[in-house]
Amino acid sequence: MLSQRKGLIKRDRSYALPSAAIESIFVFHMEKTTTKYRWEDMPRETVTDSLDRRLITAEQMMLAHVYLKKGCIVPQHSHYNEQLTYILEGSLKFWIGEEMREEIVSAGEVLVIPSNVLHKAEALEDTLDVDIFSPPRQDWLDKTDDYLRK
Amino acid sequence: MLSQRKGLIKRDRSYALPSAAIESIFVFHMEKTTTKYRWEDMPRETVTDSLDRRLITAEQMMLAHVYLKKGCIVPQHSHYNEQLTYILEGSLKFWIGEEMREEIVSAGEVLVIPSNVLHKAEALEDTLDVDIFSPPRQDWLDKTDDYLRK
Repeated sequence: MLSQRKGLIKRDRSYALPSAAIESIFVFHMEKTTTKYRWEDMPRETVTDSLDRRLITAEQMMLAHVYLKKGCIVPQHSHYNEQLTYILEGSLKFWIGEEMREEIVSAGEVLVIPSNVLHKAEALEDTLDVDIFSPPRQDWLDKTDDYLRK
Repeated sequence: MLSQRKGLIKRDRSYALPSAAIESIFVFHMEKTTTKYRWEDMPRETVTDSLDRRLITAEQMMLAHVYLKKGCIVPQHSHYNEQLTYILEGSLKFWIGEEMREEIVSAGEVLVIPSNVLHKAEALEDTLDVDIFSPPRQDWLDKTDDYLRK
């Protein structure tokens, strides 16, 4: 990496680090910071009338509290991020894959959704869902998750 | 990938797939399997007199229920796996890094422990700790986590 960076130093002595190099410096900083978060203190984003969420983002993973009101529908979508859905309160009905296989996931249960698998969900009751992703959902961070906001 | 595999077909028509290719077939299978788990139905491993755990292992992440009795000590250690520690019940006192910075993490709180950061913990009360790792902890799967069994 160092030799690549050196290769980018311009002759006029200004530096031309690519964004990946700048990011790697930032990530190095993140790696050294062990941080405690309290859910109650985290910003609560209202995504739709029936879905709020809080996010804790690490380098390789994102942990989310997703609060769904009964009847909330998460439209069918997929993403390359691996997903673990751990229901703490309530229950969600899922439709999985192109065949729309039905699966109800309730408090005390976990659904492992591999990369790129289509899924849709409906809250059968008011639900607190812990979603964990690897890598973090960039579309949730930059709010380009249009499928959820329809 | 296909062309690489084709290149490994021997003239005698037996196949010489490298282990990486076999693994990729297995991973492909894993990717397509969306699976529901119920914590109560998962095997509960007794690691020490004061620490039990249950594991749910995906491709990129591992989700664990760790049950610590009050007074349980997790000796100082580190690992390259990124760790999220989400306390559901009870509280843990951590000593973080070489400087042994103290941090108490209680129910409703999350500690993000980056890759390779030293940490030690003590259960201040009976505790249900949800640990999440990326990648999965191979030493937990093959029970070579000797630091924990001392």
